[in-house]
Parts: sequence; C-alpha cells; structure tokens
Amino acid sequence: MGFHADTAVEAVADGRYGATLQEGWDVVGNANGGYLLAIAARAMMAASGRPHPVTLSAHFLSPGRPGPLTIDCETIKEGRRFATLSATLASAERPLLRLLGGFADLGALEGPARIEEQPPELPPPDECPRVRAAPEGFPPAMMDRIDLRLHPEDAGFKAGRPSGRPLFRGWFRLLDEEPLDACALLLALDAFPPTIFNANLPVSWTPTVELTAHLRAIPAPGWLRCRFSTRFIAGGLMEEDGELWDSEGHFVAQSRQLALVPRGG
Amino acid sequence: MGFHADTAVEAVADGRYGATLQEGWDVVGNANGGYLLAIAARAMMAASGRPHPVTLSAHFLSPGRPGPLTIDCETIKEGRRFATLSATLASAERPLLRLLGGFADLGALEGPARIEEQPPELPPPDECPRVRAAPEGFPPAMMDRIDLRLHPEDAGFKAGRPSGRPLFRGWFRLLDEEPLDACALLLALDAFPPTIFNANLPVSWTPTVELTAHLRAIPAPGWLRCRFSTRFIAGGLMEEDGELWDSEGHFVAQSRQLALVPRGG
Repeated sequence: MGFHADTAVEAVADGRYGATLQEGWDVVGNANGGYLLAIAARAMMAASGRPHPVTLSAHFLSPGRPGPLTIDCETIKEGRRFATLSATLASAERPLLRLLGGFADLGALEGPARIEEQPPELPPPDECPRVRAAPEGFPPAMMDRIDLRLHPEDAGFKAGRPSGRPLFRGWFRLLDEEPLDACALLLALDAFPPTIFNANLPVSWTPTVELTAHLRAIPAPGWLRCRFSTRFIAGGLMEEDGELWDSEGHFVAQSRQLALVPRGG
Repeated sequence: MGFHADTAVEAVADGRYGATLQEGWDVVGNANGGYLLAIAARAMMAASGRPHPVTLSAHFLSPGRPGPLTIDCETIKEGRRFATLSATLASAERPLLRLLGGFADLGALEGPARIEEQPPELPPPDECPRVRAAPEGFPPAMMDRIDLRLHPEDAGFKAGRPSGRPLFRGWFRLLDEEPLDACALLLALDAFPPTIFNANLPVSWTPTVELTAHLRAIPAPGWLRCRFSTRFIAGGLMEEDGELWDSEGHFVAQSRQLALVPRGG
C-alpha cells in the first residue's frame, strides 16, 4: 500500500465515486483530516476533468472510521481556467466532509512572481527527530504512514517541554520516496501536530471546523519544508496557517484552518 | 438607504430568499465582492437560525449587476455549536456566488485568548486620506458608500506613487455611523484596494477566485482598524490576507482570498 493506493477512488455513477477509508490513517481512532481531504479531492479532480485542486475548502461534519466511502460531486461551473465543484464525502450515508473547490491546470496559470517570506530554516532532516506513532495513541497512528521530522526547537512538547510558541516547523515526505502529487500536498497541510501543543495553554485538542487549502505548484521531488503557525487565539477559535515549500525552494501551497479552542486539560 | 437596507433579504420560500443588488456598490460596473458576500450571508444567517457567520467561503462565478437576486440555502448539518450551510446567490438564474459556511453564536464560543500580532499602527482617521469615488471609475463607486481612510504611507498609489509593498492599512466604517454588524465585517474584508496596487508589478487587476472569512467577535462601535497584505505572488495566483480590529483593540475578523494575477498593463 501507500498514500496513492490508500486514497484511490473509482467512478461508480455520474458524479459519484467510491473509495475506502483505510486503516492506520487515524488520530486516536478518527481519520486524519488531510487524508479525508485527499480522497475527496481525488474524486473532485476526476469529476472536474482538471488536473489540480487549486483552492479547496472543507467543512468537517463527522469523524471518519475505516470502511467504504462515497464522494458525490456536483459541477457548479466549467469556466475557461477553473471548474468549480461542490462535493460531499460520506460513510454509509453519514456525511463526513462537505467541500467547495476550484480546479484547474496549475501549469497553465502564469503571472509575475514575488515572495515576501522566506521558507523556514531547518537543520537537515537527519538532525530533526521523526515523529512516530505510539501505542497509547499519541503521537497518532497516522504518523507511521508518513515521514515527518520536526525542527528540534519545536519538538520538546512530546517530552512535556512545549516551546511556548504556537509554531511547528519541519520536513514532510511520503514513505518509500513515493512522489508528492497535489493530493499529497493536501495531506501535508494537515499532518503536523496542532500548534496549540506548543502554546502552553489549557487546551488539549482543537477540532477543525473548516480548512481551506490553496495550491500554487506541484512540488519537485524530495522533502517538503513546512511551517505551521497561529497568531490569533480569540473568541473560542483559532486559525492555523500552513505554508509548504519544495526541495528547490519554491512555494507550493498554503492553508488556513479554523478550529475550536475548548478549555480543558 | 444604507448598508443594512442595501443588503436586506426576505424569505420567499423554504430556504429561498430574495434581495436587490442596489446601485452604487460597484467597481467599474460590477458589484463589490464583499457587498455580495454580505447579502448572501444575511440569507444564510436567516436560514441557519444562528446569529453569526463564523466561517464563510465564497467562490466567485459571475459579476453582479443591479437588480433582483435570489439566495437558495441548503442546511447541511445542524450541530450543537455550528450549523453548516451551502448557498447559491443568483441573478436571473445566473449564479454569481457559491458559498459554504458555518454559522453559530459568537458570544457562546469561549476559550483562552492569545494574540501574537499587534493591530496596525495608524495616524488618527482625520490624518488618513479618505478614498472617494471618481467619475472615471477609479477609485470605484462603492467607495462613496463606505468611509475608508488609508494610512498616508499606503495612499500614494492613487497619484502614481505605489509604496512598493503589497500592503494596505487603514480605517473603515459605515456611513452616518451606521452600526457594524457581522455582515459589515464581511464588507470590510473586501473593501480595500487590491494589495497589488502597491506592489510595482505589471498587473492591473486581480479577479478573486475564492474568499474565506473568519469572524471572531462583533465589533465595538466605532472605526475598524484594518490591514491587508500579500506575501506570496506565485504560480499566476496571489493570496490577500485581511485582519480587522475594533475600536477597543479586539481582533474581530480575518480573511484570505485567492486571486488570479494576470499579466497586463
């Protein structure tokens, strides 16, 4: 198996796709959000006839468990550059995700470039500790389906020494050097530990309400350089912003998720 | 008239609302995106039975012209905290916006607070030039429906002296001291000039593909302190991030839009 096989979809009717939520992609029993997003995006890409999800918003409705999935896609508009689609990812008629996205050919979009931000500075992957699943469920099972390495300055939270800043920086790749496609970027955008784990606040989990991903380019082979940060914890909510750069230093994707910040130890 | 009257909706059938796209809210003939968003949100709020749009994503499908509108709302999930809704805003059966949002009572959400960002430092409103509509369409007509004041350092672009940074800071309020409700925040999040106007790049317009707004609180009366910035112009696309603070210094809303960056003079 592998990421591509574990996110495969097949057409079963006009606009309807089937897939299987595989074992091992969970966080304490519930499927990782990025994994669900990748499956839904693969169906929407197929339905759109366009090669890439360029902007994709997902609302998380119910947790996902292993088993069969259906993805129902509705094409809203087929424009010159973008196809706009809505989709519902469901398990036994129970909706898990509702999505709205714009699909296009990233290679056909062009314009001037200007980047005001540097990629995060990271020690080489071999000097960044890999996050591995633990039998007690933390770190979660899905960490063994990917290769995620944290900046040493951000990794102390596992040993009870949070950095004090709601920030994670690190490296991401698929196992066995499986190539990174657009859907793997969606996975990477939700694969890191919640920034709250480094924030020294009385919060133990931050359920995602909504996540929007913007893809800019298909990455060059190799490690992704990743940064996740939070600036505004307020009103019972927080945003978490993700930024991904490829091994050649190109900015490839960006995300923002809105999560609840319930008090609790 | 005023903002509330110009964004009023009325129920016409189960889940269907009617509204009127009023004159004067346009940018060179096409309705401002935030104005359309506010109308759609008002219908979705009514359909949801919840008082606030907390997270709202909109895909822009066609430009809006003055005349009758319909907003068709579908309730996807009614949860304890959030109701999740999809909606289509259309003009004579031509869809202008497709939306997906989470609605809740902002006052009922709570948790710890931590803000890692300062509101923008601005001279007092009287020392910041007001942007007024010009007969030739730039600045656009909708500027006379709001009171928008730019930081003097960011305002030179109108006289052909862009600051060189894709950034706008300034003040926002409604006319005649009309109170700011949740929908006014949506308007404010798309009211400033495109950041590209200050970037010294060969780009004359940046059509929005998608905009996601996150609301955290209903603002105190008075001016909003606003900041719009862009960090990543790449792959023919750019993001524009908006942040709003109220007159008491509370962070109240955040947005990100993805826009095309076509080359052209």
